[in-house]
Amino acid sequence: MGGCSSQSCHRCFFEYETERMIVVKSKVVGSVFRLIQFLILFYVIGYVCVVQKSYQETDSVISSVTTKVKGTGFTNTSDLGGRVWDVADYNIPPQGESSFFVLTNMIVTPNQTQSTCPELPNQSTICMSDSDCLEGSNDVRGNGIQTGLCMNYSETVKTCEVLSWCPLEIDINLPEHALLVAAEDFTVLIKNSVTYPKFNFHKRNILPDVNSSYLKQCEFNRKTDPDCPIFRLKDMVSEAEEDFQTMATRGGVLGIMIDWNCDLDWPEHYCGPKYSFRRLDNKIPENNVAPGYNFRFAKYYKTTDGRETRTLIKAYGIRFDVIVFGTVNAVCSWFLLTCTKRRDYYSKHKFTYLDNTDDNAGEPVSY
Amino acid sequence: MGGCSSQSCHRCFFEYETERMIVVKSKVVGSVFRLIQFLILFYVIGYVCVVQKSYQETDSVISSVTTKVKGTGFTNTSDLGGRVWDVADYNIPPQGESSFFVLTNMIVTPNQTQSTCPELPNQSTICMSDSDCLEGSNDVRGNGIQTGLCMNYSETVKTCEVLSWCPLEIDINLPEHALLVAAEDFTVLIKNSVTYPKFNFHKRNILPDVNSSYLKQCEFNRKTDPDCPIFRLKDMVSEAEEDFQTMATRGGVLGIMIDWNCDLDWPEHYCGPKYSFRRLDNKIPENNVAPGYNFRFAKYYKTTDGRETRTLIKAYGIRFDVIVFGTVNAVCSWFLLTCTKRRDYYSKHKFTYLDNTDDNAGEPVSY
Amino acid sequence: MGGCSSQSCHRCFFEYETERMIVVKSKVVGSVFRLIQFLILFYVIGYVCVVQKSYQETDSVISSVTTKVKGTGFTNTSDLGGRVWDVADYNIPPQGESSFFVLTNMIVTPNQTQSTCPELPNQSTICMSDSDCLEGSNDVRGNGIQTGLCMNYSETVKTCEVLSWCPLEIDINLPEHALLVAAEDFTVLIKNSVTYPKFNFHKRNILPDVNSSYLKQCEFNRKTDPDCPIFRLKDMVSEAEEDFQTMATRGGVLGIMIDWNCDLDWPEHYCGPKYSFRRLDNKIPENNVAPGYNFRFAKYYKTTDGRETRTLIKAYGIRFDVIVFGTVNAVCSWFLLTCTKRRDYYSKHKFTYLDNTDDNAGEPVSY
Repeated sequence: MGGCSSQSCHRCFFEYETERMIVVKSKVVGSVFRLIQFLILFYVIGYVCVVQKSYQETDSVISSVTTKVKGTGFTNTSDLGGRVWDVADYNIPPQGESSFFVLTNMIVTPNQTQSTCPELPNQSTICMSDSDCLEGSNDVRGNGIQTGLCMNYSETVKTCEVLSWCPLEIDINLPEHALLVAAEDFTVLIKNSVTYPKFNFHKRNILPDVNSSYLKQCEFNRKTDPDCPIFRLKDMVSEAEEDFQTMATRGGVLGIMIDWNCDLDWPEHYCGPKYSFRRLDNKIPENNVAPGYNFRFAKYYKTTDGRETRTLIKAYGIRFDVIVFGTVNAVCSWFLLTCTKRRDYYSKHKFTYLDNTDDNAGEPVSY
Repeated sequence: MGGCSSQSCHRCFFEYETERMIVVKSKVVGSVFRLIQFLILFYVIGYVCVVQKSYQETDSVISSVTTKVKGTGFTNTSDLGGRVWDVADYNIPPQGESSFFVLTNMIVTPNQTQSTCPELPNQSTICMSDSDCLEGSNDVRGNGIQTGLCMNYSETVKTCEVLSWCPLEIDINLPEHALLVAAEDFTVLIKNSVTYPKFNFHKRNILPDVNSSYLKQCEFNRKTDPDCPIFRLKDMVSEAEEDFQTMATRGGVLGIMIDWNCDLDWPEHYCGPKYSFRRLDNKIPENNVAPGYNFRFAKYYKTTDGRETRTLIKAYGIRFDVIVFGTVNAVCSWFLLTCTKRRDYYSKHKFTYLDNTDDNAGEPVSY
Repeated sequence: MGGCSSQSCHRCFFEYETERMIVVKSKVVGSVFRLIQFLILFYVIGYVCVVQKSYQETDSVISSVTTKVKGTGFTNTSDLGGRVWDVADYNIPPQGESSFFVLTNMIVTPNQTQSTCPELPNQSTICMSDSDCLEGSNDVRGNGIQTGLCMNYSETVKTCEVLSWCPLEIDINLPEHALLVAAEDFTVLIKNSVTYPKFNFHKRNILPDVNSSYLKQCEFNRKTDPDCPIFRLKDMVSEAEEDFQTMATRGGVLGIMIDWNCDLDWPEHYCGPKYSFRRLDNKIPENNVAPGYNFRFAKYYKTTDGRETRTLIKAYGIRFDVIVFGTVNAVCSWFLLTCTKRRDYYSKHKFTYLDNTDDNAGEPVSY
């Protein structure tokens, strides 16, 4: 504020300071000056406004996903005989959540009961006599509680006996070709509804122009049917550049990404889901330790005399994880909401919590 | 740096340049100048500091949710006879996770076995003779593997026979009124603990002033019991402006949002959960393709002769997704952590990873 | 633009304006001026560039988690007799997802059937005669539908009879010591693959230098085996500063955090997973209402005459939630991608959606 003494403060308050300017009249200097001005203007408009869209208001997606798998397959194994598999058999968990598993290969151990049997042979279980086995011992990598006896596992090998679900599962003979070969033709209907609460924008991946009869026979194809929400399992795996039969044999995890990034300043018509697929578990060849995806589950039965038996299934298959993401930008819609009377309308509907949802990107996607 | 030649560089280093100013003494110009200054100051303090709170430190929530549903219902159908349903029957998955399902309507197909039966009649399955059926054919929209025979489905219609779980489910007769009508009075206890790790702030939705006896009999009510963490299912659906019985008949997905946005500069007392409810799946009337929410699951049994039978259930109901979000702001607490000796205390506890959690908004909410 | 009249606009366009400067030659003023310049420079380089790394490009993690628990335990209870528990028995859900539950304590109610029995005695169920009971009444906190009769619950107490799964569960006698004590020695293998799509960076928590034989016998230890992805349950609980047996008795929720924050400008070698553990449910002593974690599930059987029976299990245990988070920074890698020809390579692979993933922090972690 330059030289304002306290006594002249009142007068000083109404002073206005400005720089003294020099005007240089030269075509060269002037051209350079204008060029620099233009570049700055170009940067602000071109990059900040058009590319970064910094002037726009943003909001993050709230999403809900349900899935439904269709198809039946047939297997013929020595353990189970001929058997038809439908969705209630191979789809685990059955709830149609955003993550679902399709069983494609398995090792079945039927008729297990709580009893005793010799351990599977390995360095720590092979024994010569009972003195090699410790009663009550419970190795975390073993299959049960040792009874202290040494029993014939085969004609040539003796192993320590364990109390366990017997007979034990022998999981070294995984079928080389996935048992449920038909799984590649199974289809899944993915229903996905999204909400951008700040803009009161709702949309689902079943677009308005899709009708029931189309939905009954369509199948997603990036070129011919990009809007069909029904996906053939093999097609999804192929788009992720994987081979279905290879993946089906040892299992894996496949991500189904649905991208809802939109610019609401354009007509709603342009805001639609974009699908992409990617294998999520790793199969780097040089680090191929513990590959694939499998888990064990059991079906429990009771015999007529009340004893419990179970069928143990080591299930190999593909877990599909639907991942929804998206941020929406808009300046027009935002002005509508902020400046017009509709604001009151929205306020009345208690959407006050919505101002914070952009801090929670992605959150609502998971279940 | 003006005209500094390299030889006079040392002298030049200690030069100071400033603009020559002009002071305009005019009440009008001075007033406008001060007004603009005031507006800028007002913008910085009022908008940046008070509204945006840009000076505050923020952190995102780490959350854990468990749920427990209570209530019993009674159904009386021709398939099952009179039957009581408790939580182990209708709550799927049973694990009390942040997403849980309450079964309200169903189509039950008991005593299915692996056998052969004529397909459900439709354009592609109706046949005149065996030559219309292709042995081994497996339509993804069908129910099994064709045997090549043409069988009587009813007295007037013949369809191709399939190997499948027979008898086949007939899902066209969904009960018009949800079978488990009592579900609207079921309650759910939601336990939600949140942590803002950067501020070492913990809180749960069961507030400190809630005791066991209150918890045993309370029920959430926005006006009279806003702190009770026990919710009646019908109340939640009503708050989302839906009708419970309509939603129960065909199923749906309901979001339970818990908002933990807090300003830690205020007393902890003011930082509590805010509940809101919103239907997440879509029911836009003009696009009512594939509405509702349902899935199929089976209970497996073995007969005395060792054959496997199952009861197939097409389950309709409401899936409740608990969605927790929140960002916390604080300037005081942050100063405490940053400037005082407690900083060492926290550093010792290896919370170094916490500085990055705000980039992971929402992440910990899911299980 | 100073005083440009419309007629002289062309000339005016090439004018260049600048301020008239004063040069003050004084060592004191010059020193202060340079010091201020230096401080500003120091702030920009030191804080903005080095500390905040604002010049770097960031990306958020896409992650996939699978888990597999190992170990067997033995329980000896009056209800079940001696019984061995393996992973298919105690691991619920069995799918090996990022959230898994290990059963450690339980209340078992075997042989329940749909029938009638007297309610558990409490204020509202104790009766003197049938007139105290209301037929058809269905208390949400009760266990079934009242039949209207008043029956002997014990020799001294009469309660209203209910139609329910009988006999009713008596859940007041929770074993003080967790039944499945061996659970503390169970191990879990966590497989976690992460992708930073913007930088085409993939890595898994099974590091390249880990081979199969090491993986077969290793166990995570922060000092001796920080890279082993196999964790002993007790060790994880201890790192969260909790006591395993206490937590096992009433249940709880434990978070396994995997931190993948990386600076890709350093060699890839430095970018590895950092594990930490934290109890997620709350056990604040002064607010110990509704502690622990438990849920009910049932195994269904059919008797030889076709009646359905079930074994109800109130399961207490520890739910482990694997939470993956991470943001990656890089300037070199980004330049590589942006400026070199590989850009075209990436563009061809249709990774256009990736530019927006940083808005969806955390999202892909959940399933």
